[in-house]
Amino acid sequence: MTSEMSASVGEWRTALRARLGDDLVLSERDAMIPYCRDWHGDVTSDAVAVLRPRSTEQVAEAVKLCRELGLSIVPQGGNTGLVLGGIPDAGQNQVVLSLERMNRIRQIDADDFSAVVEAGCILSELKDAIAEKGMFFPLALGAQGTCRIGGNVSTNAGGINVLRYGMTRELVFGLEVVLPDGSIFEGLSTLRKDNRGIDLKQLFIGAEGTLGIITAVSVKLTPYPDQVATALLGLASLEDAITLFRRARRDCCDLMSAFEFMPPLAFTLAKEAMPDLPIPISAEYPAYVLMEISGSGLVDIDDLMGRFLEVVMEEGMVVDGTISASQAQARNLWLIREGMNEGQAKRGMHLRTDVSVRLSQLASFVADAESAVADAVAGVTCVSYGHVGDGNVHLNVLPTAGATPEQQLEQMYKAKGAINAVLDRYQGSISAEHGIGRLKREDFEARLSPVRRHLLTAVKQAIDPDFMMNPGCQLNFIPNS
Amino acid sequence: MTSEMSASVGEWRTALRARLGDDLVLSERDAMIPYCRDWHGDVTSDAVAVLRPRSTEQVAEAVKLCRELGLSIVPQGGNTGLVLGGIPDAGQNQVVLSLERMNRIRQIDADDFSAVVEAGCILSELKDAIAEKGMFFPLALGAQGTCRIGGNVSTNAGGINVLRYGMTRELVFGLEVVLPDGSIFEGLSTLRKDNRGIDLKQLFIGAEGTLGIITAVSVKLTPYPDQVATALLGLASLEDAITLFRRARRDCCDLMSAFEFMPPLAFTLAKEAMPDLPIPISAEYPAYVLMEISGSGLVDIDDLMGRFLEVVMEEGMVVDGTISASQAQARNLWLIREGMNEGQAKRGMHLRTDVSVRLSQLASFVADAESAVADAVAGVTCVSYGHVGDGNVHLNVLPTAGATPEQQLEQMYKAKGAINAVLDRYQGSISAEHGIGRLKREDFEARLSPVRRHLLTAVKQAIDPDFMMNPGCQLNFIPNS
Repeated sequence: MTSEMSASVGEWRTALRARLGDDLVLSERDAMIPYCRDWHGDVTSDAVAVLRPRSTEQVAEAVKLCRELGLSIVPQGGNTGLVLGGIPDAGQNQVVLSLERMNRIRQIDADDFSAVVEAGCILSELKDAIAEKGMFFPLALGAQGTCRIGGNVSTNAGGINVLRYGMTRELVFGLEVVLPDGSIFEGLSTLRKDNRGIDLKQLFIGAEGTLGIITAVSVKLTPYPDQVATALLGLASLEDAITLFRRARRDCCDLMSAFEFMPPLAFTLAKEAMPDLPIPISAEYPAYVLMEISGSGLVDIDDLMGRFLEVVMEEGMVVDGTISASQAQARNLWLIREGMNEGQAKRGMHLRTDVSVRLSQLASFVADAESAVADAVAGVTCVSYGHVGDGNVHLNVLPTAGATPEQQLEQMYKAKGAINAVLDRYQGSISAEHGIGRLKREDFEARLSPVRRHLLTAVKQAIDPDFMMNPGCQLNFIPNS
Repeated sequence: MTSEMSASVGEWRTALRARLGDDLVLSERDAMIPYCRDWHGDVTSDAVAVLRPRSTEQVAEAVKLCRELGLSIVPQGGNTGLVLGGIPDAGQNQVVLSLERMNRIRQIDADDFSAVVEAGCILSELKDAIAEKGMFFPLALGAQGTCRIGGNVSTNAGGINVLRYGMTRELVFGLEVVLPDGSIFEGLSTLRKDNRGIDLKQLFIGAEGTLGIITAVSVKLTPYPDQVATALLGLASLEDAITLFRRARRDCCDLMSAFEFMPPLAFTLAKEAMPDLPIPISAEYPAYVLMEISGSGLVDIDDLMGRFLEVVMEEGMVVDGTISASQAQARNLWLIREGMNEGQAKRGMHLRTDVSVRLSQLASFVADAESAVADAVAGVTCVSYGHVGDGNVHLNVLPTAGATPEQQLEQMYKAKGAINAVLDRYQGSISAEHGIGRLKREDFEARLSPVRRHLLTAVKQAIDPDFMMNPGCQLNFIPNS
């Protein structure tokens, strides 16, 4: 803690502007709001300033200055996180450091199946530029038109293609990181295989900015899958969906790229958000699967999907189904899933969870957790959907109609407690893909073993000894004795 | 450093036996030799004792006792490492801790695509047990009949299937680790997706035992690929092999599981080791590719291989080729590759390297490096082969015929210098898959940036503050000021 800690916010702002230049510093309240409000608009915070560097060197300079001034730094990408990891909390000495201006694609090398990109590049822009070269960057998630690759790496983002391509971690060849002392960790290699000892970059992937600021990333590309087959299937139960997944995993081998499940309520919710959306299947089945197979070259994806569905329908594993005959139809099928989410948002405040259990326990977990919610809070509505292949459920809870905001909050709180109690019995994870941030910190800490806490703190102290990086995110660190 | 540091080896042995029991402690020279000699038999070292615990608790007990006594620990799996990471160096106070007795498979869960196994389980035994359940553990390397899974994880082993399934790191769900303070990090989850902040287990993967002792591992399984097509192809150049790889990556999509290159000399060397081995292709082409496609279920692997080869042979990209018509024939094709290695061993001492460059530079690197070797040491023989898809070359060098051992050593030393100088120009890695150990420590340190060294040391100090784990491996740590 330096003597400047007692400086006023005004003095801090003056010092930041003097040293970094006006162009890099926002401090007007209105201009700062988009950087201090979370993606859903649930929380609006405040900051001493928002810094918007244009280069790695400017990030390093900003970090050194903040250290001098005793300011903490909250790194921010596209600010689409769902766990409040990228906006300041109530701390008095926090600046947001936005990477949005560092959005250059440094290189795309189709011959090497690699690309190098700055942290602030918007995911969909990166994907599009890569696709133009006939290549594919597999990370795919709802926020991809707004989120930025640095944030994806910092949070180790998941999404719908994880079952085939892995989490963001598995797509990263290398990182450039500004460390809390202002030094630059230069690791933007595009070597596919490099086994020189401890892999330091792994520490920063998923650290949510608590150990440093990712300024650029080198990523792994695959050939663009120009063949895609998408099917929406009606099943007798979620248990059947899991059996179907296992079968598809074997029958379609490594060509399956998505396998999502949804409840019948998905169609109602999608229609509420998108009244004109065509629903090409009856809404009478207990469970639905949205399945995608994709590939390139000499494999015949349509033929594979056709033969697979023929077998599983003949066996009765799938009761009803529709295969998209065109890209437009496939897009409509995915819109049902997106519409389901928008429909929930339209109904107002609701509980969003992101939990995982073992694949074999997915169906019984959903049944048990939904039943526990019903017992704990009468009348609320559960919407369970997610990524079957990852054992990842988004078990969301909509409050009762007509409840006051206070009643809604209480319902949500009770529902979360009920879900987490069941989850703990299943030894599941409270965060399958969204991270911890500030929203899940308490729930995370409550489940953290002393050995793990000690180790996390030891690593934090080793890399960020003054705890200046993203305080309050992931853990309230207390120094190890 | 405790006062016991001055104890005699005899006193240490007495203390170890007294506290751990005779059953756990080997200290007779003859009994210790297999644990103190490296895989190739190039180096034989010595130890205070070899500890052979039977459980995680016994490992923890041994670690605590060694700490009390001021002894360092060298963890060891199957002792098949190629970089001297698992045998003691000249230090006077080192014990080997062998995991060989912790070889139980704790569970194989085909429904969850997961298994939990103790560190000492031999890789091929694990693979066989998993195959019996219809599943597949993709890690595949020459030493698999002897190496142990804990060692594979500690070294982040590579092998022939990396291009499809990734390094060992990507096959690990969770770890159980005994830390340098004797506490147990319990992380044997089999959740496929768990994004709760910093992923501590990543630190231990590839750390070669410098941060703790991996005692058990949970791993990711895939369906067993019951269809396999293997082809040996003759090409006009290594450049063509790279072009062919890119084409295969797109045309065969994610179903390609191996793509190895070999020089024509491979056949001569294989014949020297295995005189009866059938060689089903002419040895007149400048480059050879051993390619494998595999899968399960409804994909037709033979058909895919047939159609792919038809196209690329028609285009002239492949000049000659043979597809295995049976498992026995496929086995013979792989025996050529193994025979090539055995043939090198039979010729006596030689330089083995394990370097990687960017895929697009593989052919020019091999040409430049072989030419640099020829310039530096007249008359030696280069044998370059490896994993095209990973940009990973094993550029080995055989000494001149009739050279004395001293001359051979000098030739090897000069050849390594020549290769590394070219490699540095290509910004390649001195270790693509074998790790650093003690053999590559100097070469590693010489290329380590101050920022990276500082960070590695900070992490080491955080987790192993007394530097008791595997001293001399990876880095000669000097405490950060």
